[in-house]
Amino acid sequence: MAAVRLDEVVARLGGRLIGDAGRSIRQVATLERAGPDEISFLANPKYQEKLFATRAGAVILSEASVDACPVACIVSDQPYLYFARVAQWLNPVNTPPPGVHPTASVESPIPESASIGAGVRIGPDAVIGARSRIGPGCVIGGGVVLGDDALLHANVTIYDGCHIGARAIIHSGVVIGADGFGFAREQHGSWVKIPQIGSVVIGDDVEIGANTTIDRGALEDTVIENGVKLDNQIQVGHNVRIGADSALAGCVGIAGSARLGSRCTVGGGAVILGHLSIADDVNISAATLVTKSIPDAGTYSGAVPSQEHAAWLKNFSHLRHLDSMADRIRTLEAQLARLLEIQQASSNDAEKKP
Amino acid sequence: MAAVRLDEVVARLGGRLIGDAGRSIRQVATLERAGPDEISFLANPKYQEKLFATRAGAVILSEASVDACPVACIVSDQPYLYFARVAQWLNPVNTPPPGVHPTASVESPIPESASIGAGVRIGPDAVIGARSRIGPGCVIGGGVVLGDDALLHANVTIYDGCHIGARAIIHSGVVIGADGFGFAREQHGSWVKIPQIGSVVIGDDVEIGANTTIDRGALEDTVIENGVKLDNQIQVGHNVRIGADSALAGCVGIAGSARLGSRCTVGGGAVILGHLSIADDVNISAATLVTKSIPDAGTYSGAVPSQEHAAWLKNFSHLRHLDSMADRIRTLEAQLARLLEIQQASSNDAEKKP
Amino acid sequence: MAAVRLDEVVARLGGRLIGDAGRSIRQVATLERAGPDEISFLANPKYQEKLFATRAGAVILSEASVDACPVACIVSDQPYLYFARVAQWLNPVNTPPPGVHPTASVESPIPESASIGAGVRIGPDAVIGARSRIGPGCVIGGGVVLGDDALLHANVTIYDGCHIGARAIIHSGVVIGADGFGFAREQHGSWVKIPQIGSVVIGDDVEIGANTTIDRGALEDTVIENGVKLDNQIQVGHNVRIGADSALAGCVGIAGSARLGSRCTVGGGAVILGHLSIADDVNISAATLVTKSIPDAGTYSGAVPSQEHAAWLKNFSHLRHLDSMADRIRTLEAQLARLLEIQQASSNDAEKKP
Repeated sequence: MAAVRLDEVVARLGGRLIGDAGRSIRQVATLERAGPDEISFLANPKYQEKLFATRAGAVILSEASVDACPVACIVSDQPYLYFARVAQWLNPVNTPPPGVHPTASVESPIPESASIGAGVRIGPDAVIGARSRIGPGCVIGGGVVLGDDALLHANVTIYDGCHIGARAIIHSGVVIGADGFGFAREQHGSWVKIPQIGSVVIGDDVEIGANTTIDRGALEDTVIENGVKLDNQIQVGHNVRIGADSALAGCVGIAGSARLGSRCTVGGGAVILGHLSIADDVNISAATLVTKSIPDAGTYSGAVPSQEHAAWLKNFSHLRHLDSMADRIRTLEAQLARLLEIQQASSNDAEKKP
Repeated sequence: MAAVRLDEVVARLGGRLIGDAGRSIRQVATLERAGPDEISFLANPKYQEKLFATRAGAVILSEASVDACPVACIVSDQPYLYFARVAQWLNPVNTPPPGVHPTASVESPIPESASIGAGVRIGPDAVIGARSRIGPGCVIGGGVVLGDDALLHANVTIYDGCHIGARAIIHSGVVIGADGFGFAREQHGSWVKIPQIGSVVIGDDVEIGANTTIDRGALEDTVIENGVKLDNQIQVGHNVRIGADSALAGCVGIAGSARLGSRCTVGGGAVILGHLSIADDVNISAATLVTKSIPDAGTYSGAVPSQEHAAWLKNFSHLRHLDSMADRIRTLEAQLARLLEIQQASSNDAEKKP
Repeated sequence: MAAVRLDEVVARLGGRLIGDAGRSIRQVATLERAGPDEISFLANPKYQEKLFATRAGAVILSEASVDACPVACIVSDQPYLYFARVAQWLNPVNTPPPGVHPTASVESPIPESASIGAGVRIGPDAVIGARSRIGPGCVIGGGVVLGDDALLHANVTIYDGCHIGARAIIHSGVVIGADGFGFAREQHGSWVKIPQIGSVVIGDDVEIGANTTIDRGALEDTVIENGVKLDNQIQVGHNVRIGADSALAGCVGIAGSARLGSRCTVGGGAVILGHLSIADDVNISAATLVTKSIPDAGTYSGAVPSQEHAAWLKNFSHLRHLDSMADRIRTLEAQLARLLEIQQASSNDAEKKP
């Protein structure tokens, strides 16, 4: 890995350098583990005491932590964002040499700058972007459009006709464009498949985690807008639309025809039911179920706490009887109100008597 | 796409045609998007106002909506089912030419009518059905039986000895026949694997969504009956049996040895625990946990609502104290009952006095 | 399958044999299904009546059930564990012949004892263990270390630089070492990727179920210790550590930087949030959400019961109003306390009067 001097870092990325401008760094690391040729960061001044023992060559931090830093530092308003940029610089993506592996089966033209891995299959009429890298075992259907600089890791499957934007990063096991779950029911209960004739359209700068699935639309398209980040094992149903720069953590499920706004975040394991709309800038907490549209920005939660098993047994058994609990409270309120009236009346009587 | 005249449609599929019998349609579309050579549907008369502005060439609808339809229509008792059949007609499945791709590694006889994609691996002693289509990258174990007209999309894995029925549609990333999760525990806590010697037996007309997994049985077989439809990312544990024509939405998990009846539906993200039985015609709502057998048909739910974060914080903190809440209600009831008795007694006294 | 005599079984595995020592068994089976050349087990004396009708050649059971057994039996303190060992003996793993399939693309040395399947891709600088078996379609990145006797089923993906221990069993569709979900946010809401420069380190004797994903660490490694068993469709976030001999059922999600102790069990569908620590010997029930560290061994639960839909509608609507319910109980308690005081005072008065 090449070394970079701290003055080169601030020259390119900005920020105020305090300390040895000529010091070279080669890698990023945590405050606990960083050595003299590594750079670390402190995003939250709350953890400032971690600075005392660091052996890092330099630390990226905010103004508030400067005095507590025993080593060179770069001061930034957004230390974590700054750290991300330094980390990207020091860790350029490992690019395989361009060319088509001899075991690949390719029926579409491939730009000279692209790299097509072993055993890749690309159908007819596909458009493969410049400098795109398609890992071993990927299957790209006919008519797929793949943007420039897209990176598909090994064993990704993209069905016919899907569009993927520039600079996409798609991890292994992802399936894009499988049929949505659409059936009409016959009177005796069996199911007749609705052909899924929509497609999947994915914008630029989208990252998709391992084993995530995005179904094609039934009649129209499933749409993932620019800058969306999807973690692993997410299920996106047909006709869903996810707005720009939204980020969804692992194991989220989004049912058909749901619409998420832009800049939303969804915590891990959350479930969003179908045919509803979520506004821009909504944050859904982890393990939360969304059953209705959310028209206003904000944070929404529904996670259920856990506790020691015996306590849980006692407490959660009441969930099946909340309505009768509410009834009993209402009854108590009515009875008590009557008693209070009587008591009031008798104390009035008592006052009148003398 | 070939055009079909409306009178040809009703000749083949039934229904009553109102309007221009000679009009040709080429595709299905939504009421909002359909153009003059497309056919749409209205399943629910509640949305009848959508008819007014449609530019569709024809609409499939029920008797109740005929008068509101400004264009040609086909009247059917079940418009959505009718629409499914028209959509299938207009969108025949794209069939690759028969033959075995030169990069496939095949150790079993392949019928001439079958199509085996690039890089496919088929083990020994497998039986591959007529006209079956196996997409690129699929791995079919030894002794697998695959029914006629089965369609395996790319990168499906089927372990040794599994049986798949006729007309199966299996999407990419599906894994059928991996070992069930069975271990015996040693005294010091480590685990000894129980060999999973059962298989997976899947009936006819089953569709399985992307990245769904169905484990082989421990001692007996895991069984998916005819007509079952599984969405994406479903986990089916060992020894599970799913009855005919049941349909399970995405991200459902079914633990080992659970049995679902026929014609059940299970909403997305639901979890069904192991070693229990669910009757025929049971509907499990989305995000519901089933912990006990369900002996009677009906709909069962357990989804937890979400709300604005601050309200959630206040409300759900009480979940850990429901039992003491119940105790306090009981105490109030007892105290109030005593007060009421006393009050009754004193008012009886008061009545007697004069 | 070779036959084994009962006296050979106890000679190798211990236990007390009662009955025909020369009887041969060929396979394991359930009590209901076993025939005369099969051996079964009874782990729980509660189900002792199943013994009466068994046609098994022999049964493995505990002392308590000996008298109820109509056929030969092997007495063991831990019948299920004993059964596991017999089942393993009778069902040796089917080992493909060593060698590299001609369609594999291999850039690292392969030991002669290893078996590399069709279409496998192995990058440079990998170390492949003796007698390891890599199924068709697997993609092994550069620099990967794979232990001796590891078994990778078809279509497994391992990213560059990951370490897998000896005797690993990894099922199809597993993805190990994909990037963790790490991004810094820019002011206008878009995301900047944090390069994930850690790796995944997996100990010996680990089994990983189909379509499970284990992300690589951000700065340090994601670690799965010896003897861990992971079921299907589990998501393990970056920097997670799972202690030795822990077992996690299907569909569990573990967010980044969570730490599980040794010998933990986690039920299906449970979700463990990030940046928390769980002690050794903790059992998390199925469908439970863990939001805080658990410092003490024990069982923890949070699963929500389901019920018939109409009852659920009535009961769970109160979840959004638990706090006002608690307020009303507090109000009732205060009012009642005042009434009781007044009543007490007046009865004191009454006592004084005469």
